Amino acid sequence: MDIKDIKDMYTSTGGEIKEFEKFEGKLEKGYNFSYEKRVTEIDVQLFGLISGDFSPIHFDESIALKTKFKGRVVHGMLTTSLISAALARLPGLVVIIETHFVYTAPVRIGDKVEVKGVVEEAEPERKRYKINLVCLANNRKVVEGWAKILIW
Amino acid sequence: MDIKDIKDMYTSTGGEIKEFEKFEGKLEKGYNFSYEKRVTEIDVQLFGLISGDFSPIHFDESIALKTKFKGRVVHGMLTTSLISAALARLPGLVVIIETHFVYTAPVRIGDKVEVKGVVEEAEPERKRYKINLVCLANNRKVVEGWAKILIW
Repeated sequence: MDIKDIKDMYTSTGGEIKEFEKFEGKLEKGYNFSYEKRVTEIDVQLFGLISGDFSPIHFDESIALKTKFKGRVVHGMLTTSLISAALARLPGLVVIIETHFVYTAPVRIGDKVEVKGVVEEAEPERKRYKINLVCLANNRKVVEGWAKILIW
Repeated sequence: MDIKDIKDMYTSTGGEIKEFEKFEGKLEKGYNFSYEKRVTEIDVQLFGLISGDFSPIHFDESIALKTKFKGRVVHGMLTTSLISAALARLPGLVVIIETHFVYTAPVRIGDKVEVKGVVEEAEPERKRYKINLVCLANNRKVVEGWAKILIW
């Protein structure tokens, strides 16, 4: 199976393939950007496989129903993987060096997640930037935090 | 395509499927645990699809060779997704509420990543725990940080 087959499998099971398009402009304090992607059943299944996280809170509706979440939720780190994609779209070649995230509300399978970021600190001479980040689903904040990146 | 087909695709392309086995014992300060998984080409391809992060630093060897990394590297957040799997194996139903990670060195495609964790703070009456974490690849620290979790 090659990458073409994998992409076909992904789209045929409901996965949303995003074009890798870079954001434009000059990275400086106040620069803001957003990125969104729908998180589907196939994303949760694949995140389980690649990580090994098959927790029933993500995979077993009967167990998840009995929790405060009242049903299966998306892996928090699958939600924040969209931050990786958003940062990668910034001008330049981006390397993530530090992250801090607070998971404030659950994301449901099928939700569209929007990542919004703004440059909080810019040190172009050291090629370092601190980006403030939030993730929203259904207009509700599900993640907030920041990342420090290098731009090569 | 159902989940059986997806698992077959994953293993036939070199993916390592991990059994979801819970760690034993009582979660208290000093409790330690480890989890490891090999990160392969198919993991990088699938992480690209589910996140939308197709940065050339992960996918284009000719560009990656010209960087300080001297070749393609695994997405940092794919490495830390193994922390999600490690935490999910702790006794009880685990919900991640906060994370802080520093990415200290690159992970190469094919590397086995080991997650090591130790309970730093235990508040069983509030069901809250702080876990100190490191990820190692080839005996080199690639990630260090911590996570705060709820145990339901």
